Amino acid sequence: MFLVTTQLIQVVSLIISALALGVAAWFYTWVKAQPQSNKTIAQIGEYIRQGANTFLRREYLLLARFTAIAAVLIVIFLPKPIWTGSNIADNIWMALAYIFGTVLSALAGKIGIQVATIANMKAAEAAQKGVQPAFMTGFRGGAVMGMAVVGSSLLGVALIFMIIGDATALLGFSFGASSLALFAKAGGGIFTKAADIAADLVGKVELGMEEDDPRNPAVIADNVGDNVGDVAGMGADLFDSNVASMAAALVMATSLGGLYSKNVVMVFAYAAIGLLASIIGVASARINEKGDPGKALSSSTYVTTIVYALLTALSTWLFNFEWRIWGATAVGLLVGTVIGITTDYFTNDTKPPVRAVATASKSGPAFTIISGFSYGLLSTLPALIGIAITALVSYNLCAPLGEGYGMFGISMSALGMLSIVGMIISNDAYGPIVDNARGLAEMGGFGEKVIAIADELDSAGNTVKAITKGFSIAAAGLTVISLLGAFMSEVNMVAAESGLAGISNFDIMNPTVFFGLIIGLAIPAVFSAMLMLGVDKNAQRMVAEIHRQFDTIPGLKEGKEGVIPDYDKCIDIATTGALRELVPAGIVAIFATIAVGLIGGPKAIGGYLTGNIASGLLLALLMSNAGGLWDNSKKYVEAGNCGGKGSTAHKASVVGDTVGDPFKDTAGPSINTQITVVSLVASLLSGIFLLYSIF
Amino acid sequence: MFLVTTQLIQVVSLIISALALGVAAWFYTWVKAQPQSNKTIAQIGEYIRQGANTFLRREYLLLARFTAIAAVLIVIFLPKPIWTGSNIADNIWMALAYIFGTVLSALAGKIGIQVATIANMKAAEAAQKGVQPAFMTGFRGGAVMGMAVVGSSLLGVALIFMIIGDATALLGFSFGASSLALFAKAGGGIFTKAADIAADLVGKVELGMEEDDPRNPAVIADNVGDNVGDVAGMGADLFDSNVASMAAALVMATSLGGLYSKNVVMVFAYAAIGLLASIIGVASARINEKGDPGKALSSSTYVTTIVYALLTALSTWLFNFEWRIWGATAVGLLVGTVIGITTDYFTNDTKPPVRAVATASKSGPAFTIISGFSYGLLSTLPALIGIAITALVSYNLCAPLGEGYGMFGISMSALGMLSIVGMIISNDAYGPIVDNARGLAEMGGFGEKVIAIADELDSAGNTVKAITKGFSIAAAGLTVISLLGAFMSEVNMVAAESGLAGISNFDIMNPTVFFGLIIGLAIPAVFSAMLMLGVDKNAQRMVAEIHRQFDTIPGLKEGKEGVIPDYDKCIDIATTGALRELVPAGIVAIFATIAVGLIGGPKAIGGYLTGNIASGLLLALLMSNAGGLWDNSKKYVEAGNCGGKGSTAHKASVVGDTVGDPFKDTAGPSINTQITVVSLVASLLSGIFLLYSIF
Repeated sequence: MFLVTTQLIQVVSLIISALALGVAAWFYTWVKAQPQSNKTIAQIGEYIRQGANTFLRREYLLLARFTAIAAVLIVIFLPKPIWTGSNIADNIWMALAYIFGTVLSALAGKIGIQVATIANMKAAEAAQKGVQPAFMTGFRGGAVMGMAVVGSSLLGVALIFMIIGDATALLGFSFGASSLALFAKAGGGIFTKAADIAADLVGKVELGMEEDDPRNPAVIADNVGDNVGDVAGMGADLFDSNVASMAAALVMATSLGGLYSKNVVMVFAYAAIGLLASIIGVASARINEKGDPGKALSSSTYVTTIVYALLTALSTWLFNFEWRIWGATAVGLLVGTVIGITTDYFTNDTKPPVRAVATASKSGPAFTIISGFSYGLLSTLPALIGIAITALVSYNLCAPLGEGYGMFGISMSALGMLSIVGMIISNDAYGPIVDNARGLAEMGGFGEKVIAIADELDSAGNTVKAITKGFSIAAAGLTVISLLGAFMSEVNMVAAESGLAGISNFDIMNPTVFFGLIIGLAIPAVFSAMLMLGVDKNAQRMVAEIHRQFDTIPGLKEGKEGVIPDYDKCIDIATTGALRELVPAGIVAIFATIAVGLIGGPKAIGGYLTGNIASGLLLALLMSNAGGLWDNSKKYVEAGNCGGKGSTAHKASVVGDTVGDPFKDTAGPSINTQITVVSLVASLLSGIFLLYSIF
Repeated sequence: MFLVTTQLIQVVSLIISALALGVAAWFYTWVKAQPQSNKTIAQIGEYIRQGANTFLRREYLLLARFTAIAAVLIVIFLPKPIWTGSNIADNIWMALAYIFGTVLSALAGKIGIQVATIANMKAAEAAQKGVQPAFMTGFRGGAVMGMAVVGSSLLGVALIFMIIGDATALLGFSFGASSLALFAKAGGGIFTKAADIAADLVGKVELGMEEDDPRNPAVIADNVGDNVGDVAGMGADLFDSNVASMAAALVMATSLGGLYSKNVVMVFAYAAIGLLASIIGVASARINEKGDPGKALSSSTYVTTIVYALLTALSTWLFNFEWRIWGATAVGLLVGTVIGITTDYFTNDTKPPVRAVATASKSGPAFTIISGFSYGLLSTLPALIGIAITALVSYNLCAPLGEGYGMFGISMSALGMLSIVGMIISNDAYGPIVDNARGLAEMGGFGEKVIAIADELDSAGNTVKAITKGFSIAAAGLTVISLLGAFMSEVNMVAAESGLAGISNFDIMNPTVFFGLIIGLAIPAVFSAMLMLGVDKNAQRMVAEIHRQFDTIPGLKEGKEGVIPDYDKCIDIATTGALRELVPAGIVAIFATIAVGLIGGPKAIGGYLTGNIASGLLLALLMSNAGGLWDNSKKYVEAGNCGGKGSTAHKASVVGDTVGDPFKDTAGPSINTQITVVSLVASLLSGIFLLYSIF
C-alpha cells in the first residue's frame, strides 16, 4: 500500500535508535536522582564501583591490543588479501567496521557498569521504603542497559549499511562485536565465579557466615563480579547476538535482491519495531506496593511480545511485505516463548525437577550432581525440538517465495526470537542490580525486613533470567544456522569472481564435510573446559588468600570493630586471573576454525560449523539449565525444605550450586558467543579458505 | 596369487570360530579345575552366583517378551510390509535372523556370568599363592568370555550369510544383537551402579567400613552387579559392536559387487584373521612371579595388534586384495591405539589431569566435579580428532577404487579398529573378575598380603579398561558412520524397486536434514539421563534399605558373630529396580527414530543419525573419561596423596567417584549401543520411511 525505500527505513531506524538512547538517558538520570543517604552503603558501593571500573579498564586495555592486531590483519586479508589486487579501500572500510563493532560492544559493557553500580545502591536504599520503589529503581537501572544496547546495535547496523553500503562489511562489524563479547563474557564470567565460589566456600560453608558478610575478604570481589560478569559481559553478549542476527538476515536479504530490495527494508522495519516494542514494554512496567515483582517483569515482557506481533503485522499489511516472512518471524517469537516456558519447568522450584534434586540431596552431594546433571540433559529436549521445528517451518514457509528464501526465512525467525531483546536485557540486568542491592542492604545493616524485600526482588530476577537464557541460546542457534547460509553465499560469491566451482551443498556423506563436523564437535567442549578450569584455578587461589587473611589479620574473624579485610587483594587476584585466562580459550576457537578451513576448505568448514552448532547447543542448554536448577534447588532447601539450612541436603545442594555456577554463568552462556564468532570468522575468511586450502 | 571364493572363506571363518570356541571351552575347564577349598568364599561365591543368575533369568524373561513382540512386527513389516505383496518367506527369515541375534547375544552374557562367578573364587584362592597364578586365573576367565563372544559373532555372521544369502538379513541379525545388548547393558548398568553407590555411601562414607565388608547388606548385591553389569552387559555390548561392524562392511561389500565379490571375501578374511590374532594374543599372555600384571595385559594386546597387521598384509599379498583397503584397516587399528593412549593420559594417575583433580579436591567436592568434568570435556578432543582423521583418510584411500568404495573404506577402518576385539573383551572381563576376587579375599578373611595382591591385579584391570573403552567408542562411531552409508544404500534399493527418486546426499542446508540433526542431538542426552535417573532412584531406595537393616537387625553394625544381613533383600531391590528402568530408555530411542522417519522420511533420518553420532560420541567420551578420571583420582588420594584417606580431599574424591560411576559404567558405554540400535532401526525401516513418511 505504501512504498518505503531502504533510505527511508534506515532513517526511521536511526530515529527509533535515538529514541531508545534517549529513554536510556532519561532512566539513567532518574536513577541517579533517587535519594541516597546511608554512609556505609555509599562507601561499599564506591569500593564496588572502583573495583568494577579497574577491571574493565584493564580488560579493555588488553582487548585493545588484540583489536589492533586483528584490525591490521583485516586490512591485509579482508575482504580479500591485498596482494590479489583488491581495492585497498574495501579493506580499510572492513577494518573500520570491525573496530566500530568492538567499540560499541565495549561501550555497552561500560554503560551497564556505570548504571548498575549506582542503581544497586539506590535500590538498596529504596528497599527501606518498600517493594515498589526498589523494584522501579532496579528495573529502570536494567532498562538503561537494555535500551542502550539495542539502540546502539540498530544504530550501528544502520550506519554501517548507510555509509559503507555493503553487506559483507556488516559481517566485519558483527565480528568486532562478537570477538569483544567473547573475551568480555569469558573474562567477566571467570572473574565473577571465581570470586563467588571462593567467597561462598570459605564464608558460608566453612565459617557459617551469611552471604555478603563484610568480614569476608572476597565479598567486594563477589559484588564486583556480579557487575563485570553478569552486567557488562551479558550486555556485550546480547549486543553481539542482536547484531549477528541482523547481519545474517541482511546478508541474505541483499544476496536475494540487492541493497535496495524490499527484503532489506523489511529486516530494518522489523528490527526497528522490535526496539519500539521493547521501549513500550519497558515503559509499561509497573508494580503496586503489594505486587509481585516476578509478575511485573513477565507482564511487561508479554506486552512487548504482543506489541511486536501486532505492529509487524500492521507494517506487513501497510507496506505489502510478504506474509510468509512475517509468519517465519512469528514462529520464531512463539517458539522462543515456548522454549522459555519449558526451561522454566526445569529450573522453577515449584516444579518436580528442582524438588527431585532437592530430595536426592538428602543422600549426599553425589546424588545432587547425578540427578541435576540428568535433568539438565533432559532439559535439552524441548529446546532442541523447538529449534528444529522453527527451522523446518520457517524454511518451508518462505521457500515458495523463491531460491534462497528458505534460508532467509530461518534468519528472520532468529530475528523474531530476538526481537524483544531490549526487554530481555532489561530483565537480565535487573537481576545483578537487585542481587547487589541485597548485598549492600546486608552490609549496610538495614535489618531483616529490608533484606527480605531485596530477596523477593532477587528471586524474581532469577526466574526471569532462566527463561531469557533459553530464549537467547535458541536464537543464537538459529542465527548461526543462517550464518551457515551466509557462509555459503560468501563462498559462492568468491567462486564466481575467481572462476572456480561454487558449492551447492554440505553433504554429510562427503568425507571432508564429515571430518569438519567431528572436529567441530570438540570445539565448544574444549572452549568451555578451558573457561571452567580457569574458574577452578582462580577460585582455589582466592580460597588460599581468604584463609591467609583470616589467619593473619587479628580480630577479623570475630568481627572486631574497625577491622576490615584487604578487599583489594581479592579483587586483584580475580582481575589478574581472569585476564590471564580469558584470551586462550577464544584464541583456540578462532585458530581451530582457521586450521580446519586451511586444511579442508569450505566443505570442511560447512561440517565444522554444523559440529559447532550441534555440540554448542547441547552443552549450552545442558549447562545453563543444570546450573539454574542447582541454584534454585539450593534455594528451595534453604527455604526450609528437605531439612532446611544446615542439613545434609543443604550441604549437598550447596555443592550442586557451586558446580552450577561456572556451568550457568561462565561456560554455558559463553558458548553462544563462541559459536557466533566461529561462524563469522568462517564467513569472513570464506574466500581465503576457497582459494588457499590444502585439500 | 590365490583365488579364494566366498564359500571357502566362510568355511574358514567357521573353522576359526570353532577354534575360538574350543579355546574358550579349554580355558573354562582349566579355570574350573583350579583348586578351591575355603568354605566362606565358597558360600559367598555361591550367593553371588545365585544372585547373578536370578537377575539374568528375570531380565531374559522380560526381554524374551520384547523379542517375541519385535519378531511378530518384523514378520509383518520387514524387509517389506506383507501387504505390499512381498515374499513372506523373506519376512520370516528376517525374523529368524533377528531372534538368532538376540539368542547369541544373550548366550554371550550367560557364558560370561557362568565363568566369571567361578573364576572370581578361584582367583581369590590363587592370590594366596601369589600374583602369577591369580593373574592367570583371572585372565583365562576373561578370555573365555572374549573367545566365546568373538567366536560366536563370526560364527553367527557366517551362518546367516551362508544360509539366508542376503546382506539385509544381516542387519536383522545385528539388530537382534544390538537391541538385546541395549537392554542388557542398561539393566546391568543400573543394577551394578545402584548397588555400588549405595553400598559405598552407607558402608564406606557413613560408617567408615572397608569396601566389601560382609556386614554391609548391599555387599553381595554390589558383587552381583559387577557380574551382571560389567561382565554380562559388556559381553552383549561388544558382541553387538562386533556384529554391527561386520554387518555394515558386508552390506557395503555386497552392494559394491554382490555376494560373491572379492570384497566380501576380504571382509571375512580380515574378521577371521582378527579372531586368530586374538587367540594367539590370549594364548601368549604370560606373567612371571615378579611380573607386572598391567604389562602382561598390554603386551598381549600388542602381540594381537602386530599379528593382525602382519597376517592381514600377508593375506592381502597372497590373495591379491586391494592394498588401499588394507591401508584403511591399518589406519583404523593405528588410530585406535593412539586414542587408547590419549585416553590413558586423561585417566592414568601418573599423569597431570588425575593429579590436578586430586589437588582440586582439597578445596571440596565442587572443585572435584568442576575440574574432572572439564578434563572430561578436554579428553574428547584427541579421540574426536582421531575419528575425524580415520574417516577422512580411509575414505580418500579407498575412493579411487570406484564409486561407493570411500564409504566401504570407512567401514573397513571400523573393522580394523575392532579387529582385536577378542583380546579387548578378555582384558575387559578380567577386570570385574579380579575386582570380585578382591572382595572375596576380603570377605574370606585372607589377610592384608593377599588383598594387596588382589589390589594389584585390580588396578591393572582399571587402566586397561579405560584404554579399551576409548577404542570401542571410536569404533562404534566409525561403524555408525558406515551404517549411515548402509542406510543410504538401502533407501536407494527400495527407491529403485518402487520407481521413486533415490537420494544422493544428506545436505545440511536441507531443512529436513537439519531438522533431523537437531532432534537427533537430543536422543543420546535423553537416553543417558533416563539411565542415570534410574541409578539415582534405585540407589536412594537401597540406601534406605541398608539403613533399615542396620537400624533393625541387632548386632549387625557391631559385627556380632553369626549375625548376617539380609543380602537377598538388597539384591531384590536392585533387580526389580533395574528391570523397571531398563526398557523405557531404549524404547524412547527406538520410537523417536520411527517418529522422525515417519515425519520427515529418509532425509530427516540422515540428519537424525548424524545428530545421534554427534551427541553420542561427545557424551560417551565425556562420561567414560570423566568417570575413569574420578575413579583413579580417588585411588590416587587413597594411596596417601593430597592428605590421604579420611582427608577433605578424600571425601571430595569419593563424591567424584560416585558421580563418575553411572557416567562411566551406566550411561557412557550404553550410548554406543544406543546409537548402533538407532542406526540399525533406521536401515531396516528405510523402505517404510521412504514410502510412508508425511513430508
